[in-house]
Amino acid sequence: MELFAERGFEATTVADIAARARVTERTFFRYFADKREVLFSGEDLLQTAFVDAIAQAPEGQPVWTLIHAALDAGAKTLQETRGREQARAREAIISANEALQERELLKLTRLARAVTKAFQARGVAPTQARLAGDVAVAMFSTAFQRWIEPDQTRDLTELLHEVAADVQSITTS
Amino acid sequence: MELFAERGFEATTVADIAARARVTERTFFRYFADKREVLFSGEDLLQTAFVDAIAQAPEGQPVWTLIHAALDAGAKTLQETRGREQARAREAIISANEALQERELLKLTRLARAVTKAFQARGVAPTQARLAGDVAVAMFSTAFQRWIEPDQTRDLTELLHEVAADVQSITTS
Repeated sequence: MELFAERGFEATTVADIAARARVTERTFFRYFADKREVLFSGEDLLQTAFVDAIAQAPEGQPVWTLIHAALDAGAKTLQETRGREQARAREAIISANEALQERELLKLTRLARAVTKAFQARGVAPTQARLAGDVAVAMFSTAFQRWIEPDQTRDLTELLHEVAADVQSITTS
Repeated sequence: MELFAERGFEATTVADIAARARVTERTFFRYFADKREVLFSGEDLLQTAFVDAIAQAPEGQPVWTLIHAALDAGAKTLQETRGREQARAREAIISANEALQERELLKLTRLARAVTKAFQARGVAPTQARLAGDVAVAMFSTAFQRWIEPDQTRDLTELLHEVAADVQSITTS
């Protein structure tokens, strides 16, 4: 991650990454399929956090409450595994490379569809489940962008609650 | 478009497309940069419809009313320029090819950010404007997916209004 920021994503080789991490290339490939994986390996963790929060919530809760539970779980995971500084570095690398931006978009879309499936598994109608997935990911990514702003010191969970209030004010205005 | 459906996107050449349309390849390239453009040339029309609807609405209207105006304008444009049968054929081609799916996602993201800019130009705060763009595109793409379902006969505008009610029921539940 440091190397990508120093040299640019394209110019950094797996050999460079392995040397910096003091492991062999063979060890590198045991953990990551390629160098893009270094940036995207957290994807599954976030998706699991969202999906588990929805699946494990008590019965009878409204969709909006489940979206909150999913976002809070995602925020907790992100803050624990990556932290704000690392998230900022990762974002700088991705925004400088179009192929990585496309990969990031695909990741967010997969996340939205995983949330949709989790809602369908709880009996939410397909259209509502799809919208819930899209809205949840839009909220998470909006709060995330605010969280990594240069001078931002507020907590991701707090920003998510503010974003939730913004969504409500839009849809009920 | 017919050729893509018959032979698959990869196997269809620009020469094939030009021959079917009874034009020279040179004429083809006057209208489209490449064969992917045949599928995505409607993109600008949709974006213009959304953005103009937001920009031209009377002052003092709430964000939710402007989202409705944008979606209605987009639906009108789509139904007039493409129509349901063509939209179904296009969707079948795109969903069979991963690179085209990525392009479609990029298109939707650009559309969301164009809507965000149109809201910011009207003085809506950045976070709300971003959410409004994401929510508008999520609503449009959800209604669009329903519109092109095999047995669907209902109008896109009608489906959009139903989707809008669904979003409201999610965020106020």
